[in-house]
Amino acid sequence: MDLQKLFKPKSMAVVGISKKNPLSPGRIVLLKNEFEMDVKVYGIYPNGGDLEGIHLYERLDKLPEIPDLLVIAVGPDDTLGYVQDCVDLNIPSCVIVGGGFAEIGGKGKKRQQQLEKIAFDNDIAVLGPNCLGVYAPPLVDTIFLPTERITRPPKGSVALISQSGGVLVDQFFNKFFERHIGVSTAVSIGNRAVVDEVMLLEYFSKVDPETSNIAFYLEGFKEGRARNFLKLAKESDDTVIVFFGGKTREGKVATQSHTASLAGDYKILSAALRQYQIVLPNSERELLTSLKVYDVLSHRKNPFGKNVITYGNVVIVSVSGGHGVIASDMLKKYGLNAVRLERHEKKDLKELLNPSAREIASFNNPIDLTGSVIDTDIEDVIKYLSDIERIECIIMLLLPYPPNISFQIGRRIANVVSTKNKPVVCFVPYVAKYSLIIESLELAHIPVFHSIKEAVQAVSALKHRTRNENVKKGNLFWV
Amino acid sequence: MDLQKLFKPKSMAVVGISKKNPLSPGRIVLLKNEFEMDVKVYGIYPNGGDLEGIHLYERLDKLPEIPDLLVIAVGPDDTLGYVQDCVDLNIPSCVIVGGGFAEIGGKGKKRQQQLEKIAFDNDIAVLGPNCLGVYAPPLVDTIFLPTERITRPPKGSVALISQSGGVLVDQFFNKFFERHIGVSTAVSIGNRAVVDEVMLLEYFSKVDPETSNIAFYLEGFKEGRARNFLKLAKESDDTVIVFFGGKTREGKVATQSHTASLAGDYKILSAALRQYQIVLPNSERELLTSLKVYDVLSHRKNPFGKNVITYGNVVIVSVSGGHGVIASDMLKKYGLNAVRLERHEKKDLKELLNPSAREIASFNNPIDLTGSVIDTDIEDVIKYLSDIERIECIIMLLLPYPPNISFQIGRRIANVVSTKNKPVVCFVPYVAKYSLIIESLELAHIPVFHSIKEAVQAVSALKHRTRNENVKKGNLFWV
Repeated sequence: MDLQKLFKPKSMAVVGISKKNPLSPGRIVLLKNEFEMDVKVYGIYPNGGDLEGIHLYERLDKLPEIPDLLVIAVGPDDTLGYVQDCVDLNIPSCVIVGGGFAEIGGKGKKRQQQLEKIAFDNDIAVLGPNCLGVYAPPLVDTIFLPTERITRPPKGSVALISQSGGVLVDQFFNKFFERHIGVSTAVSIGNRAVVDEVMLLEYFSKVDPETSNIAFYLEGFKEGRARNFLKLAKESDDTVIVFFGGKTREGKVATQSHTASLAGDYKILSAALRQYQIVLPNSERELLTSLKVYDVLSHRKNPFGKNVITYGNVVIVSVSGGHGVIASDMLKKYGLNAVRLERHEKKDLKELLNPSAREIASFNNPIDLTGSVIDTDIEDVIKYLSDIERIECIIMLLLPYPPNISFQIGRRIANVVSTKNKPVVCFVPYVAKYSLIIESLELAHIPVFHSIKEAVQAVSALKHRTRNENVKKGNLFWV
Repeated sequence: MDLQKLFKPKSMAVVGISKKNPLSPGRIVLLKNEFEMDVKVYGIYPNGGDLEGIHLYERLDKLPEIPDLLVIAVGPDDTLGYVQDCVDLNIPSCVIVGGGFAEIGGKGKKRQQQLEKIAFDNDIAVLGPNCLGVYAPPLVDTIFLPTERITRPPKGSVALISQSGGVLVDQFFNKFFERHIGVSTAVSIGNRAVVDEVMLLEYFSKVDPETSNIAFYLEGFKEGRARNFLKLAKESDDTVIVFFGGKTREGKVATQSHTASLAGDYKILSAALRQYQIVLPNSERELLTSLKVYDVLSHRKNPFGKNVITYGNVVIVSVSGGHGVIASDMLKKYGLNAVRLERHEKKDLKELLNPSAREIASFNNPIDLTGSVIDTDIEDVIKYLSDIERIECIIMLLLPYPPNISFQIGRRIANVVSTKNKPVVCFVPYVAKYSLIIESLELAHIPVFHSIKEAVQAVSALKHRTRNENVKKGNLFWV
């Protein structure tokens, strides 16, 4: 099944527009694509006329061209007729936003079976039903919530596939936006009657050149599809990340009334997935942190260089002893290792500092440069540590409180990283007035996190990626 | 030892002011108290003169009055002389910001012993050395970092005591500010040579009327003081919360070079602490979430009423199935229980909704009102659930995406809560444009969290508090 036209349509049509209700899904989709997106969009309305200056066509067969995509936003009883129209008019793909299918059981289940038959027999790429559809910037956005009410993540390397539309726009869109994690395409799969996680994994892995990281929020695999998913994940050159909702018994009960899937025993499942080189975050935050780092690594201007190899050997640099303590606490939890510094290295580091910091700084890993630190101390310490080969990554806990740290500090660190190519992940507290520092780092694609935990998780994500790449290359002994 | 004048000084003096260096700690403390705080502040400078319009006195004995507090911001060699001045002039308390004492070992250790002797023999309340001191709004602020570089939490019920100054201003001040958690007094105890966690627990518990919740960030108890701490915690009417840095071996090594304390075996310690009715959060986020809820409960306008009793029986209300799944997943982890709704209750709830939501909503707990929800649905559902006695708390997952949710929704929920007094904790995503909704809720003192996890942790915090209060009342069988 060809998904190209579903995700990269040149033209699309929308059925199910209300002239009376400004908040009807069809109307929202028509207007947001007309005014905000690049796709050519046509509205269908039985009596024709126009809506906010957009001409409406009476029927699909009256359109001036065959659209690549049809968005169906009508009630369940009318939906199948429009899918049949796709067959008759050679429209290759459609998004069904409405519910009333398998998720309500009974006749809805039967309706979904009919839908599946039409789609598979005629090779129509149907997304949904019961979904928000596709957000593929800058082309198309079928998410029928008013754009001014939601956030949109920036463009980037992550294909994001979610079984829950609510989780997609809330948990993911807001947090991608907040953290500047870029998506290539976001997909809400709803009941996944036709297009499912396996087809999507195949498309984003093999066809879509914009995607390097494929992230799934699932409540369970579609029945009978787990094996194909695992096989594709193992073969993929992209990083595949799966996060499961519904891990506990309570969660499972909730899932059953939500999209009628079953999570299975999570422990058994997760062991299997890891064997197939799938990254499996333990929390939503860990997922976001991993994606942020992977998105940076996939960027053309990735400051860490092409071959980032991290088995988890890190140095923590802070300007506050307490912060070093918290970060050290977390290393063990994430299977990371604080590199032991040699006596001569400690001596060298001490000599790099300004006289007042030199007296009170501490050079056990975590390194505490103290509140007497100045910009060049941080710069020189990172430079020095970058040249030590057994250090694979530096966690920089950057508090802007010491009075001699200037607004240049972000730029200074960025310059060191761009010459040394040693992975540096930064923690900077999230306060509006520190934006200048945060932006200087992020402009140079250095990932900045707003909690110590996330900075540590980021290194753990690099380690997982190194491990998976080793296994894929057949370098098995390290596992 | 009387700590009243340390935390509520009418007048204070500062020694260690530099005329040349605008960032010297003494100078920052002088200026921020002169311009930003209510205390009467005097600057001491050997040659007199003035600084930014403030008259400087040559010596402490030339001041027009005996100050309640002396801030000593000079090098370690000169510090003890000023402490002796406190004795000679009857200055009852001082803050020593500089280091060079026990934390450097050797002669520093000896110096600290001398300091202790002078202070205990003469009953001088010495805070520090090696600390940021006191932030007690609106009176006094000895934190020698420029105010424009840090954030300040609002005024409230939490006394916040931290063994790390960096953790205090970063982890806590930023996050208290962000979450609107109010402090009565914040204290950085540094080496805690004289004033220690036990004295502070006693003062805030028995003396300070503004404090109802006492939170500690410790890396370990001061030697020989754990027993007294536990005894006081058990007797206290306030809620006592302790969060430990340095829980793992790695963390412990870091702690030793930081403030020369020892965390001990964390598992043994935590079991003991819980027996003494101390709330022991497992993470910093859990700590913040607990404090946010406890601060609300301590407020005069607490919307949940005087006697909040929560054994963990909750209902989750969402407008997105996926969000309900995530919240359900977490209940078990936090020892909470999703109340099972009766058939007639589900029927009643269904009838409350608008016709389009009614058809697709789901009434298993978690309740999913779906994207077709309107304001009055949410209002009526919370009203109905509030009247069911076996429901102790409602977790409202409030996404502002459904197009018919209006900006009134926060106010509407607040009105229901203020009449029903049933605890309701809300999740609203943290996006600037949702501020209107978030503020309507928080103006009515309804705690709003920006992740689902925190909303669930908040209920867990209510449960811990209920348990501790039961035990304190001798109602032991429930433990």
